[in-house]
Amino acid sequence: MGGNDEMGNVEEESLPPPHLDLYEPLLEKEKVATAGNANGNVINGTHHTAMIGTRVAPIESLDYELVENELFRQDWRSRKKREILQYVAVKWTFVFLVGILTAIAALGINTAVENIAGVKFLLTVKFMESNRFVWAFLVYAGFNVMLVMSAALLCVYIGPSAAGSGIPEVKAYLNGVDTPNIFSIKTLVVKILGSIGSVAGGLIVGKEGPLVHVGSCIASLLGQGGSVKYGLTCKWLRYLKNDRDRRDLVTCGAAAGVAAAFRAPVGGVLFALEEVTSWWRGPLLWRAFFTTAVVAVVIRTGIAWCKQGHCGMAGEGGLIIFDVSGVQESYGLRELSSVAVSGVLGGVLGSLFNQINAKIIVWSGTWLKKKGKFAKIIQAILIALVTSICSFGLPFLAKCQPCPDHLTIPGEKACPTYGRAGNFKNFHCPDGSYNDLAGLFFNTNEDSVRNLFSKGTNGEFQFSSLFVYLTSAYSLALLTYGTAVPSGLFVPAILCGATYGRIVGMIMGSFYVNGHMDEGVYALLGAASFLGGSMRMTVSLCIILLELTNNLLLLPLIMLVLLISKTVGDAFNDGLYSLHVHIKGIPFLEAHPPQFMSHLTARDAITRPLIWFSKVERVGTIAEVLRSTNHHAFPVVDDDVECSGKPVFFGLVLRSHLLVLLKKKEFAKNRLSRSEVQSSRVTAAEFAKPGSGKGLTISDIELTVVEEEMFLDLTGIANTSPYTVVHTMSLAKAYTLFRQLGLRHLCVMPRASEGQPIIGLLTRHDFMSAYLLNLYPHLRQNNYTKIQAFTSKRDEQL
Amino acid sequence: MGGNDEMGNVEEESLPPPHLDLYEPLLEKEKVATAGNANGNVINGTHHTAMIGTRVAPIESLDYELVENELFRQDWRSRKKREILQYVAVKWTFVFLVGILTAIAALGINTAVENIAGVKFLLTVKFMESNRFVWAFLVYAGFNVMLVMSAALLCVYIGPSAAGSGIPEVKAYLNGVDTPNIFSIKTLVVKILGSIGSVAGGLIVGKEGPLVHVGSCIASLLGQGGSVKYGLTCKWLRYLKNDRDRRDLVTCGAAAGVAAAFRAPVGGVLFALEEVTSWWRGPLLWRAFFTTAVVAVVIRTGIAWCKQGHCGMAGEGGLIIFDVSGVQESYGLRELSSVAVSGVLGGVLGSLFNQINAKIIVWSGTWLKKKGKFAKIIQAILIALVTSICSFGLPFLAKCQPCPDHLTIPGEKACPTYGRAGNFKNFHCPDGSYNDLAGLFFNTNEDSVRNLFSKGTNGEFQFSSLFVYLTSAYSLALLTYGTAVPSGLFVPAILCGATYGRIVGMIMGSFYVNGHMDEGVYALLGAASFLGGSMRMTVSLCIILLELTNNLLLLPLIMLVLLISKTVGDAFNDGLYSLHVHIKGIPFLEAHPPQFMSHLTARDAITRPLIWFSKVERVGTIAEVLRSTNHHAFPVVDDDVECSGKPVFFGLVLRSHLLVLLKKKEFAKNRLSRSEVQSSRVTAAEFAKPGSGKGLTISDIELTVVEEEMFLDLTGIANTSPYTVVHTMSLAKAYTLFRQLGLRHLCVMPRASEGQPIIGLLTRHDFMSAYLLNLYPHLRQNNYTKIQAFTSKRDEQL
Repeated sequence: MGGNDEMGNVEEESLPPPHLDLYEPLLEKEKVATAGNANGNVINGTHHTAMIGTRVAPIESLDYELVENELFRQDWRSRKKREILQYVAVKWTFVFLVGILTAIAALGINTAVENIAGVKFLLTVKFMESNRFVWAFLVYAGFNVMLVMSAALLCVYIGPSAAGSGIPEVKAYLNGVDTPNIFSIKTLVVKILGSIGSVAGGLIVGKEGPLVHVGSCIASLLGQGGSVKYGLTCKWLRYLKNDRDRRDLVTCGAAAGVAAAFRAPVGGVLFALEEVTSWWRGPLLWRAFFTTAVVAVVIRTGIAWCKQGHCGMAGEGGLIIFDVSGVQESYGLRELSSVAVSGVLGGVLGSLFNQINAKIIVWSGTWLKKKGKFAKIIQAILIALVTSICSFGLPFLAKCQPCPDHLTIPGEKACPTYGRAGNFKNFHCPDGSYNDLAGLFFNTNEDSVRNLFSKGTNGEFQFSSLFVYLTSAYSLALLTYGTAVPSGLFVPAILCGATYGRIVGMIMGSFYVNGHMDEGVYALLGAASFLGGSMRMTVSLCIILLELTNNLLLLPLIMLVLLISKTVGDAFNDGLYSLHVHIKGIPFLEAHPPQFMSHLTARDAITRPLIWFSKVERVGTIAEVLRSTNHHAFPVVDDDVECSGKPVFFGLVLRSHLLVLLKKKEFAKNRLSRSEVQSSRVTAAEFAKPGSGKGLTISDIELTVVEEEMFLDLTGIANTSPYTVVHTMSLAKAYTLFRQLGLRHLCVMPRASEGQPIIGLLTRHDFMSAYLLNLYPHLRQNNYTKIQAFTSKRDEQL
Repeated sequence: MGGNDEMGNVEEESLPPPHLDLYEPLLEKEKVATAGNANGNVINGTHHTAMIGTRVAPIESLDYELVENELFRQDWRSRKKREILQYVAVKWTFVFLVGILTAIAALGINTAVENIAGVKFLLTVKFMESNRFVWAFLVYAGFNVMLVMSAALLCVYIGPSAAGSGIPEVKAYLNGVDTPNIFSIKTLVVKILGSIGSVAGGLIVGKEGPLVHVGSCIASLLGQGGSVKYGLTCKWLRYLKNDRDRRDLVTCGAAAGVAAAFRAPVGGVLFALEEVTSWWRGPLLWRAFFTTAVVAVVIRTGIAWCKQGHCGMAGEGGLIIFDVSGVQESYGLRELSSVAVSGVLGGVLGSLFNQINAKIIVWSGTWLKKKGKFAKIIQAILIALVTSICSFGLPFLAKCQPCPDHLTIPGEKACPTYGRAGNFKNFHCPDGSYNDLAGLFFNTNEDSVRNLFSKGTNGEFQFSSLFVYLTSAYSLALLTYGTAVPSGLFVPAILCGATYGRIVGMIMGSFYVNGHMDEGVYALLGAASFLGGSMRMTVSLCIILLELTNNLLLLPLIMLVLLISKTVGDAFNDGLYSLHVHIKGIPFLEAHPPQFMSHLTARDAITRPLIWFSKVERVGTIAEVLRSTNHHAFPVVDDDVECSGKPVFFGLVLRSHLLVLLKKKEFAKNRLSRSEVQSSRVTAAEFAKPGSGKGLTISDIELTVVEEEMFLDLTGIANTSPYTVVHTMSLAKAYTLFRQLGLRHLCVMPRASEGQPIIGLLTRHDFMSAYLLNLYPHLRQNNYTKIQAFTSKRDEQL
């Protein structure tokens, strides 16, 4: 293996990023074609599975091409005005539902986390107040371990696809890679319960990533077009039975997830646009915007309801809004330079985070695969234990600080808190003083963030406390992400970033006596820089942070810090989600082909032997081919030589359509009875793509010996106008077509139609860099002379 | 003509909008093909000109396809790492420059407008204070007429492409429609000077639209790759000599324009994304974001410098930031219902605005075309005069109001003003009172907006004044947009919207005694609703308004009002810019094909006779074809029958490349000497697309009789792997390919290669609905039986 340049930041012009060879995908592919005779029939044995969550799962491509066969043409033509209106109505109703349900899920997770964590902290504090520290620790650690263990059990045994943040998987789905379980009901339930467990269990994880997955899950489940099994079906829903509409719904779901997580409706739309989707259409912006607006209204209403005391201990907190408004109105060159420092730090620490995290995941993944499911649970428990020890033990190292004078309320013993989970934690300190490290560690993550972002608190934290917190939060976040529990990365990134932001602020403050910015602003900029350095988003992060902090005057500073940290980070490696997509072995198609593809032609990528059918094919042959291969499309060739002189390409037939026809058993007695087009007895709706679940497989179909000798006419169901390219087209150009139109199969045709009617089919896997670079290793070395020799030799052959 | 359904909101599923037949394009097309024999050679005589600014100009398509011929392949392959780095460096430097220059242009326009308008108002007020009202009016009107006249003179005689807002033209360019003058230096200069004239001249226009054009213009001029004529060239610049990179630069320029106009960097990026571009790539988001960040920093610095008194009368004002923060923290169902009222009003008034404005433009356009250039100037002068009369005369109708008690400063005669151009205009009123209508009329537009948006001013405006202002501003805006001066529509829309927003607020206020929202907030929501109802943007408007008002808590309200007004507006007609694109006769390709195209095949759209060349063609034939047609691409056919049996399609050759070869005169003596590939003596750089200007034309090339009898080998320059479709592919599917990949020519191939080697070429014009519906009128009537009959008859023929 090796040579995994495929994750390159593949603009047309870009160089392959230098360090990617470090990361090898987690899965060992069975057999990768070795170099050699490019036109020989080498099998592309790679990429039919990928890591989804923590489990190796089979993957399939989605197909957004319009199938144009006789049957479907008839269907389109008969579509009436009323039906189009129904379709539009269904679409809008569904995004409305996605918004409402995602918001409710977010509120539910939030309420549960706040209540469970609240009980945990109350009990622990009770024991501490009576100086029973061992008991306190046991209660605290016990709670954490139990919660995390339940999450891990759910993830490992019930919904393995629910582990991790889910954003790489959603990204892969929207790029056209489908896995059966990624959006199932099981996954949804496990994701919701699991994130409650892992967040309430005190791990350094967030619930933002998981909420994106939850939103997409809800959207995808709605988009299944009902369930025949449970009788949940309706004539109107049939319009949604195709991959395009599901893709749109899932995009809206992802936007809703971010919108619900951060209460940032515009940020949600932009996140979906910038990070998650691969295809974007104008009307989708508008629909996604509507979804997030619904989310915003529902969340707002829900929080207002909770404030009236209906939600137990869940009040304002949890759905993070930090208000640092009214802090910084002007800034000069001095502030800009310290912003630049934060940006560079963020770029370095963020890309280092990606690098180490990827290493850990690959390493632990290989190890855990050997040890089995039980080891995954042990791993989660150990991490919960270590986190508990850190968050309970380390605050004892911090020196107690006297409460700041101007904030002390006369007659009160403890330092003031804003709300229940305020800035100052007493912990083990005497009255009138506080433990600043406990304010960070001994809190829910979101309250820690709020403490770090709080304004007017210069000097509240000691340098040493921040440093201890930074190193342990950074290390714990590295260890935790990749465990078999639902875990988001936004909150850990914000925690680390805000901490070193405050450190930068304190250092700057010691240089300039007056007029430097509030440390809360530095914390915000630090968070921005870490997010930018690790996730490499720009516009959406900017908006999310703005919506979180409600201070537009900071916009130029946030923009600057994001620009710097992204640039610095890009110099080292790829964004976190892209790295994870790569590590998981997902065949992801970037927006632009890597440069080496311009040296190859479409023919060079075709390696597998082509199997084609005649227009009227023997049933036994079809069944045999379907049994022995797992290809999803087959060319149909008109080999009626009497009529056309020599075999010509007729169209492309999909495996799923063949299966429907075989199931129907509308066979003809002999090859010539093609006039009785059996498709007239089959309706287009029967060919609609099924939702989740396996759909029809060849093993479901029983054929008698007599039937096997009969014939099937493929004229009606063959897509007679698939997209084609000539075999001399450069692979880069073919890639553009494939990627832009969201194809699953691309027919490669011969130049002058001599000999073969069709040369081959290109699929997603044939465009994977790892595969191609293995086939043509000289392209990897970027060796100009060798490339030259290869291309001129190839050109001569053509 | 008629049947212009092409502007439909063409999602795959959408119905044609009901009212579009009302709008006929401004230009009468020479000959539109009439219905009849679909396969006959009917000429598509439409669409080779369009209205650009106020002038009819020839248009061309842009081509984003990678040309793959021998020559360019060599060029790619030899591109080294160093060159790629140079390319990246050039790109980033250029977007940086675009940001800086656009910001400077915006600051320049702003300073000029503020100073000129300042002098105008000071002089007028001086005359009024001495009760010489006639003189005051003469000075006021004289200033306005002179300013508007100069703008009109510039527009009509020097840069006709600079008239109007320019957004439709930029939108068309980014969709792939080029016009020679739209981004020339002349246009840039006229646009800048003209907007100073029209805005300072008191017209109800904004400088926001023009700034988008200015930004794009600057970007495009930078992207020309230097000028050989003026010796401004550099080896590095050659990388930008292609349409793709220019498109990206122009997109960044448009974003910079909005960012500079509103000081809304994120809004600028989103505006470019939502409204202006047709293709969007991930890395572009990032680059556009960088551009607008640069704009924000430069504008900020510039304003700080101006505040120190370097810019004459230009201070804070002008580059609008309205601060309505801290106004409204909570709102309930009652407020939401009044928001809904604003939304519906905005939708109705906005779409009515589009409807009437389109009518006026078509009507006056036809009339002005007859009368000539002079009439255009008279029209502009008349509008300036009417506007002056309204803004000077109507305030006399308003009752003077006593200054509000809580604001009066003891000892001061006049009501307080915030800064120079504050809320309260004394006008002709006695001391201690103010004229509310003058505060709206007798001000620069942006100060009026600021007055309307100001918070804590409930009751400042009388109902009658607002009503008078609304009707006159609405009518004047309708008349003004479409005149031969640079004119933006954002500010007029904000003015009208804010005015009726305040009216709604006052009415609501009279129902509920306490607890209703601030009228400033109502004004903001009104502005949002009118913008949404007229321009139909959502996310970008939302962000722009947020960045303008700096109050994120209003986000849900703004979202709601935009959603409602867009929905209401869409029920009536299309967005303003889309309407203008249509009226101007620009062959715009929407993101999705109209539904009727699924009834047609690719062959149905081909009407012009196909002209092809042999691989080695006689020079005289080529020259003759280039002289007699204006096609931009020709198929090359390998008709060496001895070798291949029958003619086969070889590739596509571009007119521009043929011209370069003809100019070079690398001819061969006879047809057989094809071994001496002359292209080796021509470098790829010579084929690079020239920037603005006409480029090479056939009339530049002189050929002797001997030369005409020689031969030219096209093997080297033919694009041997163009994108192709089979002729039976539905036109809708071919449209998707054409639009998604940004093609200029799409080859339509026969099914089995019998007879012709190629059936025809599809271009942008062949996808125009007006043309197709004329050819196949039964599709227009949506008559199911007729369509059925047509398609089955066609299918039989295939």
